Amino acid sequence: MPDHPAPPPYGFFGPVGTFTHQALLSLPGPFVPVPYATVPLALQAVRVGEVAASLVPIENSVEGGVSATLDNLTYGSPLVIIREALLPVQFTLFGRPGIALTDVRQVLTHPHAAAQCRDWLATHLPAATVTEGGSTAGAAAEVANPQSRFDAAICAQLAGEMHGLAPLATGIADNADAVTRFVLVSQPGRVGPPTGADKTTLVLFMRENHPGALLEILEQFASRGVNLCRIESRPTRRTLGDYCFSIDAEGHIDDARLAEAMMGLHRTCADVVFLGSYPRADQIPPDVRVGTANEDYAAASAWLTQLRG
Amino acid sequence: MPDHPAPPPYGFFGPVGTFTHQALLSLPGPFVPVPYATVPLALQAVRVGEVAASLVPIENSVEGGVSATLDNLTYGSPLVIIREALLPVQFTLFGRPGIALTDVRQVLTHPHAAAQCRDWLATHLPAATVTEGGSTAGAAAEVANPQSRFDAAICAQLAGEMHGLAPLATGIADNADAVTRFVLVSQPGRVGPPTGADKTTLVLFMRENHPGALLEILEQFASRGVNLCRIESRPTRRTLGDYCFSIDAEGHIDDARLAEAMMGLHRTCADVVFLGSYPRADQIPPDVRVGTANEDYAAASAWLTQLRG
Amino acid sequence: MPDHPAPPPYGFFGPVGTFTHQALLSLPGPFVPVPYATVPLALQAVRVGEVAASLVPIENSVEGGVSATLDNLTYGSPLVIIREALLPVQFTLFGRPGIALTDVRQVLTHPHAAAQCRDWLATHLPAATVTEGGSTAGAAAEVANPQSRFDAAICAQLAGEMHGLAPLATGIADNADAVTRFVLVSQPGRVGPPTGADKTTLVLFMRENHPGALLEILEQFASRGVNLCRIESRPTRRTLGDYCFSIDAEGHIDDARLAEAMMGLHRTCADVVFLGSYPRADQIPPDVRVGTANEDYAAASAWLTQLRG
Amino acid sequence: MPDHPAPPPYGFFGPVGTFTHQALLSLPGPFVPVPYATVPLALQAVRVGEVAASLVPIENSVEGGVSATLDNLTYGSPLVIIREALLPVQFTLFGRPGIALTDVRQVLTHPHAAAQCRDWLATHLPAATVTEGGSTAGAAAEVANPQSRFDAAICAQLAGEMHGLAPLATGIADNADAVTRFVLVSQPGRVGPPTGADKTTLVLFMRENHPGALLEILEQFASRGVNLCRIESRPTRRTLGDYCFSIDAEGHIDDARLAEAMMGLHRTCADVVFLGSYPRADQIPPDVRVGTANEDYAAASAWLTQLRG
Repeated sequence: MPDHPAPPPYGFFGPVGTFTHQALLSLPGPFVPVPYATVPLALQAVRVGEVAASLVPIENSVEGGVSATLDNLTYGSPLVIIREALLPVQFTLFGRPGIALTDVRQVLTHPHAAAQCRDWLATHLPAATVTEGGSTAGAAAEVANPQSRFDAAICAQLAGEMHGLAPLATGIADNADAVTRFVLVSQPGRVGPPTGADKTTLVLFMRENHPGALLEILEQFASRGVNLCRIESRPTRRTLGDYCFSIDAEGHIDDARLAEAMMGLHRTCADVVFLGSYPRADQIPPDVRVGTANEDYAAASAWLTQLRG
Repeated sequence: MPDHPAPPPYGFFGPVGTFTHQALLSLPGPFVPVPYATVPLALQAVRVGEVAASLVPIENSVEGGVSATLDNLTYGSPLVIIREALLPVQFTLFGRPGIALTDVRQVLTHPHAAAQCRDWLATHLPAATVTEGGSTAGAAAEVANPQSRFDAAICAQLAGEMHGLAPLATGIADNADAVTRFVLVSQPGRVGPPTGADKTTLVLFMRENHPGALLEILEQFASRGVNLCRIESRPTRRTLGDYCFSIDAEGHIDDARLAEAMMGLHRTCADVVFLGSYPRADQIPPDVRVGTANEDYAAASAWLTQLRG
Repeated sequence: MPDHPAPPPYGFFGPVGTFTHQALLSLPGPFVPVPYATVPLALQAVRVGEVAASLVPIENSVEGGVSATLDNLTYGSPLVIIREALLPVQFTLFGRPGIALTDVRQVLTHPHAAAQCRDWLATHLPAATVTEGGSTAGAAAEVANPQSRFDAAICAQLAGEMHGLAPLATGIADNADAVTRFVLVSQPGRVGPPTGADKTTLVLFMRENHPGALLEILEQFASRGVNLCRIESRPTRRTLGDYCFSIDAEGHIDDARLAEAMMGLHRTCADVVFLGSYPRADQIPPDVRVGTANEDYAAASAWLTQLRG
Repeated sequence: MPDHPAPPPYGFFGPVGTFTHQALLSLPGPFVPVPYATVPLALQAVRVGEVAASLVPIENSVEGGVSATLDNLTYGSPLVIIREALLPVQFTLFGRPGIALTDVRQVLTHPHAAAQCRDWLATHLPAATVTEGGSTAGAAAEVANPQSRFDAAICAQLAGEMHGLAPLATGIADNADAVTRFVLVSQPGRVGPPTGADKTTLVLFMRENHPGALLEILEQFASRGVNLCRIESRPTRRTLGDYCFSIDAEGHIDDARLAEAMMGLHRTCADVVFLGSYPRADQIPPDVRVGTANEDYAAASAWLTQLRG
């Protein structure tokens, strides 16, 4: 008889062997990884309670934001980020067992991987045809199929190994410093406590698309001493030229300066979507400017109360 | 035996017959007017409890801020403004009984009055000598003295009448629209309730005298939707080039947008002196921008509480 | 014997039958369309002089910016936009001749098309497998191949017709209002004259990644009265968290307000990439604020010259 | 026969013996000092060509701006500042020859001097009556008159000595660090060359009295990297609540950043009055931010010209 509960199931953007899978395995457990074919399916599994949380990619240092994730979190029913993970993007060319690098003619991979290895491919496999498919892990699976017309796949280390392929070249990304950021998403509940090095993700919709709107938003943060670590305009799924802003701000919803900035945004924006306060993967504490610490906010509040008499 | 308390004493910047006296009489009573020779004495009388409140001039539409009042309220022990009064500046030339306008050779008045009637004097009394003394009411008293070498005084209607002088010319100010603003000052206590058309007076000291400091202060107001009706830089009594800012903001300390702006200033300024929230004399309600009403602040606060889970 | 020159060749992001091809055919001619397999190849053809200009997609109202285009224009050798074109995104499901909608089991298309038709597919073809390939036109070609394992392709009208496929369902995009913006790119030269309704595209690199950097950039535009129609942060291909900003501003490099803003950005940014001033496809003239017209700039300059004596 | 021209006459705010006189004598000569009874008269003498220039007080570190000077320069026919001078405010109590400090009963001085020596007077001459007259130098002259009812004058060293009075107490100002700033004003002409440590004085009138107007003005300076050393709101002589701004900015009209800021103000303000670019008395060079030096402006202009093709 078990005397402890079963580990919770955690979804991820699969199939088995993706970079997301690899990133999930870097998180502390225990949990049971469950692959989902698409980001929306991985997130839907959280909403219906099939899994306790799901890991999905949100940003890539080369390609930018991951639309499927950003849009699903923005427009779907509420979910929140509870943790983030960073993974260096290290592409490997895996071949059918027995093939030599010089014999590779047909390469299969995901379009992003193809884009990020373009220079390497042009230099080392100038004669090869590169075909873009749905995922790097799927490409590895296809190459492992003896009937496949493909000789090699560009994929994560994990995928090549799982499918018994042979590494032909490692570290083939044109930009050796590329990193992908993943977020672990769960149903909303009590927000975890501040750790001193936190991040908060928000999506902001303008009340009207007027020229100074973004300037006003940035001033809501600046006037409270909140720094931003990411800002990305996103089309709002309405007409071209109508944007919302996906933002990561330094700090936690329990930090007074961020709380006041968020209330300011709630008042001045048409809509604010809160996507969670969570520990930073890099554990870098914020640069708290003079007058913006929690104690400064508390002192200001006490001063006001005393003035009111 | 009296069945009701005696009316409270109200100090004013005298002597009897000044514009301040005239402005005090325009306020609803009952109260007993008590003249003080200088603005500091009138304010000190409030501090020591000699009078319940004192009326002093704070701003003139021609001369600007009244240094004696602004500085005493800024640097003296705490007092607060509880009411304001506006008085059109209407100068009258009063002569010794029996004298004709054409015979006036020696005019006595206060330097500000002399400055504001300069064109009229040059046109109508080109041959007269104008001497500047300590107050317009004192000038009237002097002219009423039979031994005086002065023929006429420029003063308020009240002063001329009190001293039995003859009006020689009325409305002689070069700028017919000049107005003086007076404030009724009392000891701090519970701030009076908002009326919907209020003003709040503050003095702000910069933490350091850096170039963008004023810009940052103005953004504390702007980001909360608070308009300013007056801003005046004042030397800080330290070195040339070190300023503080005397400000009248629209709204009441009990208005959420002003309260948050004040707390923001408390955090970012070296010092904030609160000089009271009080009804506007002109009763003009503020222009409340979208998202800055009390209800918007309350809704934002409720939203945040709910997000925190 | 011909008495006029041959029409110039215009490249486009092919293959034949893509939305880009369809958008190119909407431009006034004459020109000879030349397909290129990728955006970089289409742009490289301009650089080496193979074509006079190339049309490539730059922004989609659902998916956002097109990374391949934005990055190639930003980091490749200089090219400039000389014209833009807008095309409503209208997806059609084309099948192998003879097949009925209800028999479709294997659908091939581009990942963006799959994403934009997800709801329609879930509703109308819940049992079908959707495979993502390199282009919608390529998908149509594949389906037209009798040996293909795919039954149907989601693609542009042009592609389906060119490959002799049968339309099974039209207007299947989940968002009926989606629009794609294309830009016609040529080698730098003399910038075309202002039309009164122009747009200028810039990429801005921060001097350092400090918190207020974006605010400062926006103020360079705002202080000259220049409105922005698009702003998009893009990772700089360095580390996560290092962004540049891709911007479309209202106006032409020959407009004084935009010229001054650009010079301000040149001074304060680490780098400014100018990607052209060109007529707006929607022909909407800018909202010129008081004091920001060319005449106002000229008057200010004349005033300054006169003051200098 | 003289082989060189006579020294030019320089007006000053008199009478002989004022602080202004003392400040004028600190400037390099040669020139012939000519007293005028009021600031407007001293300035008028420049306008009509009676004197080559006039020195007048413009700002006092305790009292603030000098209204008579600021307003005359703002509203009178054009004059420009060509030089500034700083003078520590050192008040001396001068008595009738033979009198002892303890016997002083009647003190005469200017209202500003009375205000700035209030504490000293209260401590050392509690029984004396202080009368406020038109000037400190006039007070010294009056006390020197044997028929005068006054025992002593508070005035500048120069005035006491000129009138043969006896110094009873020196350095009696409550604030030992007070400084007065004077400006030498001439008719407009070619502006003197930049010295590398210059100041420019401007008066700015808002186009409309809207809340953010001052914020916009400050941004015109900030976006070009121009620091301000003084800003003072002044009533516009119209209604209460209508202000203009008197500003000293770092830099010279020939500095590119200030020139561009001035042109921006000319475009966005209702009126800009230029009151001169002149060497700073303290010779402190400006803090030139990255990207705002003359060379940066020149480089930006060259870049733009090259882009236009």
